[in-house]
Amino acid sequence: MTGRGGAGPTADQHHRADGHYDVVVIGGGVIGLAAAWKVAARGMTVAVVDPEPGRGASWAAAGMLAPVSEVHHGEEALLALALASASRWPAFEAELTAAVGRSIGYRTSGTLVVAADDGDRAWAHELYEFQRELGLGVQWLTGRRARQLEPNIAPGVRGAIWAPGDHQVDNRLLVGALLDVARSTGVAIHRTRAIALECSGGAVSGVALDTGTTLRARAVVVAAGSWSGELDGLPPEAAPMVRPVEGQILRLLPSERAPVLTSTVRGMVQGSSVYLVPRLDGTVVVGATVEERGFDTAVTAGATYELLRDAHRVVPGVMEMVLGEISTGLRPGSPDNAPIVGRPGSSGVDGLVLATGHYRQGILLAPLTAAAVAAIVCGDEPPQEMAPFTPRRFTEMAARAGS
Amino acid sequence: MTGRGGAGPTADQHHRADGHYDVVVIGGGVIGLAAAWKVAARGMTVAVVDPEPGRGASWAAAGMLAPVSEVHHGEEALLALALASASRWPAFEAELTAAVGRSIGYRTSGTLVVAADDGDRAWAHELYEFQRELGLGVQWLTGRRARQLEPNIAPGVRGAIWAPGDHQVDNRLLVGALLDVARSTGVAIHRTRAIALECSGGAVSGVALDTGTTLRARAVVVAAGSWSGELDGLPPEAAPMVRPVEGQILRLLPSERAPVLTSTVRGMVQGSSVYLVPRLDGTVVVGATVEERGFDTAVTAGATYELLRDAHRVVPGVMEMVLGEISTGLRPGSPDNAPIVGRPGSSGVDGLVLATGHYRQGILLAPLTAAAVAAIVCGDEPPQEMAPFTPRRFTEMAARAGS
Repeated sequence: MTGRGGAGPTADQHHRADGHYDVVVIGGGVIGLAAAWKVAARGMTVAVVDPEPGRGASWAAAGMLAPVSEVHHGEEALLALALASASRWPAFEAELTAAVGRSIGYRTSGTLVVAADDGDRAWAHELYEFQRELGLGVQWLTGRRARQLEPNIAPGVRGAIWAPGDHQVDNRLLVGALLDVARSTGVAIHRTRAIALECSGGAVSGVALDTGTTLRARAVVVAAGSWSGELDGLPPEAAPMVRPVEGQILRLLPSERAPVLTSTVRGMVQGSSVYLVPRLDGTVVVGATVEERGFDTAVTAGATYELLRDAHRVVPGVMEMVLGEISTGLRPGSPDNAPIVGRPGSSGVDGLVLATGHYRQGILLAPLTAAAVAAIVCGDEPPQEMAPFTPRRFTEMAARAGS
Repeated sequence: MTGRGGAGPTADQHHRADGHYDVVVIGGGVIGLAAAWKVAARGMTVAVVDPEPGRGASWAAAGMLAPVSEVHHGEEALLALALASASRWPAFEAELTAAVGRSIGYRTSGTLVVAADDGDRAWAHELYEFQRELGLGVQWLTGRRARQLEPNIAPGVRGAIWAPGDHQVDNRLLVGALLDVARSTGVAIHRTRAIALECSGGAVSGVALDTGTTLRARAVVVAAGSWSGELDGLPPEAAPMVRPVEGQILRLLPSERAPVLTSTVRGMVQGSSVYLVPRLDGTVVVGATVEERGFDTAVTAGATYELLRDAHRVVPGVMEMVLGEISTGLRPGSPDNAPIVGRPGSSGVDGLVLATGHYRQGILLAPLTAAAVAAIVCGDEPPQEMAPFTPRRFTEMAARAGS
């Protein structure tokens, strides 16, 4: 028997009176919601536990789907994962929008990586050459050619990489749609905090909630972002090593004075990085800082200053826009800044699945992560691109270091 | 008979059932509230009409009491007015804080006007020489000496004016205290909008409210800031010529990471002006832009950027502070940017008093303006420093131009 009923939108109708589920997902961000949806779609009863589903890092994010412009030296396995997830995005988006009957702001208009000065140009050209070596679809543009593509970028821009395959989605529309599709697929949403994992006989048995009750489950997915390692009851060797990495981000509101942008514009400005993501409604999302300050999410004057300074240098016209919001989120960073997805090694706890550590790429990696979690929970093989990102890589690393 | 009863804090107890008052004040900003208090203290029945008393420009302001550092060439009469009002501030503050029993954040720690580069130094030194000619109490400091006074100003500062007589008050505590003292002096607060002046037989007779009722009055004080010229029923020749001049301003919140500032620091940064006003609680108010965009009060990315850029240049440490608030206000600017206080000339409407056009100096000029309004309403002579700021100067100017 499963908890799937009609397609009603309320959270409560899928709450099971006995508190028993096949799977409990801790965390209702983009990863937890997408995974819950995909697990429920396989016929399992699923609950998501989150005091504020869809908020957190998924809400603060910019929604870039940018495996090419985010590539870094030495991270070829992560690139393969990112490309594999990017390739799933069109079908994922089509399925999701068909299910909820509305747009999630998916926009395939490409990304322009612009260099503000000669030093930035050298950096960008080196990145371009690396991208070419990797066989990625990029093109080098002069400043003049870049301005033909995006007339509102600054006249002083010295050159640019054109990455037509780097897209975007409106992350806030996305999490709203995921919450709806999860509910309509039968997922119960418990709007409270998970405080402890409960185990019995070498296997997970449930999750204790802040309300004092416990949900019973045969499998528990920990998708709690930066808080994934904080859950009581997690065996130390199974606790994912994630740390919060703060990002501050601005939202500039549409108006008749706003400059028109079609593609996402990423800028390198005297070695400092900024991006401007234009939504279909004219909003421009400007991000993001990368700050390691623990769980502090205060908006600092300096972060806002640096984002505005660099945005001003890349697309001066955005200064005329209304500063509608300054927000912050905590990205879950792992020791190698790559995701941690799968069963922990040697934890002696069956039924535990980790899905965290997505750092700056949670939105992009959601389709592949959800598919991997659903496969793992059901005893199937996850997509092979996820294999390098098993939690076991850290214990194996530690074992090798100790031997 | 007057409406003065006990010292109760509620607005309603002073509302008169028949709607008759001696004086109705339109506008509950710092000017309207201070005037209402001083008129009521003379035994008159007074009502203030404002949908949100204490908000508007008075709320957005920084609270500088700075006649010396605000002086401009050609504005010697305004300087005399500002100095006269500044000299009333200690007694005004003492009376107000004694009445309400709490602090209004009055701080007499002086103002440092710093120059960021050589061009700014030339400008600042010229201002200093002008201030000296006027006999004002200022001192020229080298950058090194300025940093001894305020160790957290930028090392690159090229010189500074020290104006020990330019003080500050917490404008938000001030308007709160004025609202309380007005009530305890018997002033009725009508939290609605005044929509029209009513006249009868060549004299004011009342004020029509947005609620549909009318307050009757023998005198009406128009202290509605930027909206003072918008009131229906004002004879065109009596309507003050004020325009809204937007100011955007930031509030940085206290924390252990905030740099300590003791004096107000005003900076001239490549010709652009910024000020940082340190509150006793550690808050730093950073302002302000001067923008003529009608009644638009949107926070723009560019305004926030410029304030942060210049503040960063003058006191770099404030970048570590939490950006707690970005707000805007509309300063009432007159044709000569000086206040308009007194009876309008040749309007044929007895009982009408204007008290507006205070532009950037409403907080500073409140004590003298309140005294002037109280004197005029009671048929006494206002302080002589107010004489040049009669509304009649514009009609006389127009008459001279036409002759």
